[in-house]
Amino acid sequence: MTQIEARTLRYSVDGVAFEGRLLFDVADPAPRSGLLMAPNWFGVSSAAEELAGQVASRGYRVLLVDVYGATVRPVNPAEAGAAMLLLKQDRELLRRRLLAALEALRGQQTAPMDAARLAVFGFCFGGTCALELARAGAPLKAAVSFHGALDTPDPADARNVRGAVLVLDGALDPLVPRDQLAAFAGEMNEAGVDWQLISYGGAVHSFTDPAADNPGTAKYNAKVSKRAFAAMYALLDEVFA
Amino acid sequence: MTQIEARTLRYSVDGVAFEGRLLFDVADPAPRSGLLMAPNWFGVSSAAEELAGQVASRGYRVLLVDVYGATVRPVNPAEAGAAMLLLKQDRELLRRRLLAALEALRGQQTAPMDAARLAVFGFCFGGTCALELARAGAPLKAAVSFHGALDTPDPADARNVRGAVLVLDGALDPLVPRDQLAAFAGEMNEAGVDWQLISYGGAVHSFTDPAADNPGTAKYNAKVSKRAFAAMYALLDEVFA
Repeated sequence: MTQIEARTLRYSVDGVAFEGRLLFDVADPAPRSGLLMAPNWFGVSSAAEELAGQVASRGYRVLLVDVYGATVRPVNPAEAGAAMLLLKQDRELLRRRLLAALEALRGQQTAPMDAARLAVFGFCFGGTCALELARAGAPLKAAVSFHGALDTPDPADARNVRGAVLVLDGALDPLVPRDQLAAFAGEMNEAGVDWQLISYGGAVHSFTDPAADNPGTAKYNAKVSKRAFAAMYALLDEVFA
Repeated sequence: MTQIEARTLRYSVDGVAFEGRLLFDVADPAPRSGLLMAPNWFGVSSAAEELAGQVASRGYRVLLVDVYGATVRPVNPAEAGAAMLLLKQDRELLRRRLLAALEALRGQQTAPMDAARLAVFGFCFGGTCALELARAGAPLKAAVSFHGALDTPDPADARNVRGAVLVLDGALDPLVPRDQLAAFAGEMNEAGVDWQLISYGGAVHSFTDPAADNPGTAKYNAKVSKRAFAAMYALLDEVFA
């Protein structure tokens, strides 16, 4: 019987306060692996927290990352887009915030965790964040991107990647230009990364998000979502074995 | 306790005799799903039969397909290449032979089987065969290609596909030109096929074949092979559920 609870985890970067949410099963006293979850452009939200809780129920300690700062909680696409754009245009700032979140997860004493077994996963913009953290050289066993953009300002950063990389891609995703796939493959191959990319037919952007309902652009796909999560869990089982 | 045995399954096409090998667990009386295994360019061989037996031990009735004819058993790459080329250049002939093998599997009375639950998988040239059978409109729940070429004489044939398609691709495979990936995606998307393609970093051609030892071209990759088989079994579990 799992009993998922959430606690606020506070950390700061460049003098700015951040509040992530730590999701874990209080009924499970074992030191579990730790996962960062980089949410979509809405950042820390009730929907993201629910999803983080579902992952936590599989036996992980999950920190839902706050990349925008404790006072920034977008409530509409315009706000989300503006908050996201700042970070997309400043990858160094994004990295500092992601690395700080990882440090906060590693250092947390709230839930028993094996701090040597860490990974990151993320959705949409959060997928980009997951790859960015891997490209920053963070000590991750795996980085998983769900329908995130794959571009990078500096392909040579792939040499910093220390764990396995898994990209879960909607083959019809109009927000991830198709030429990014070959560029990403080239980047990862060049650096000798242990990477995988799964393209799913019939899937557009946001295929994991039950609330996404914009056909042809961003829409939930139950079958593909299930496959993609299964692929992530299979990789996590492998790298944490 | 599994007890895998092999029986020769005879069928004919265009007046030519074929001898496939049926692998199954004689200790398992349940009507299991049926799988065609399209071998690599060496056709029916002891190595292929061993692999078919490994898959059969997972609870499948596996017919190792004879696409060359009972008298054609290549013993070196030159012979294998010549035999393969004939079929690559005559896709209609290849289809007739694959469809006949599928009929032989459906009709066999040797091992208890659920003839409504069929799929095909194949390796290298056999991967091409698996896709060809799906493109021919065969009643398959799934078609799985391991490091097979993806090209087709007629992309519109994708409209015939009736089950799920899974392509397992070595991202460094020099024998599957990289531009085939985008072409394949376009073909499958256009037809609305339920498809997936997994590219594996670090893998070249023949990554599932323990005997392949030609670095940079065709070489065994234990980690990727394990991942790829796991992906196939996950899809088979899904489509046969």
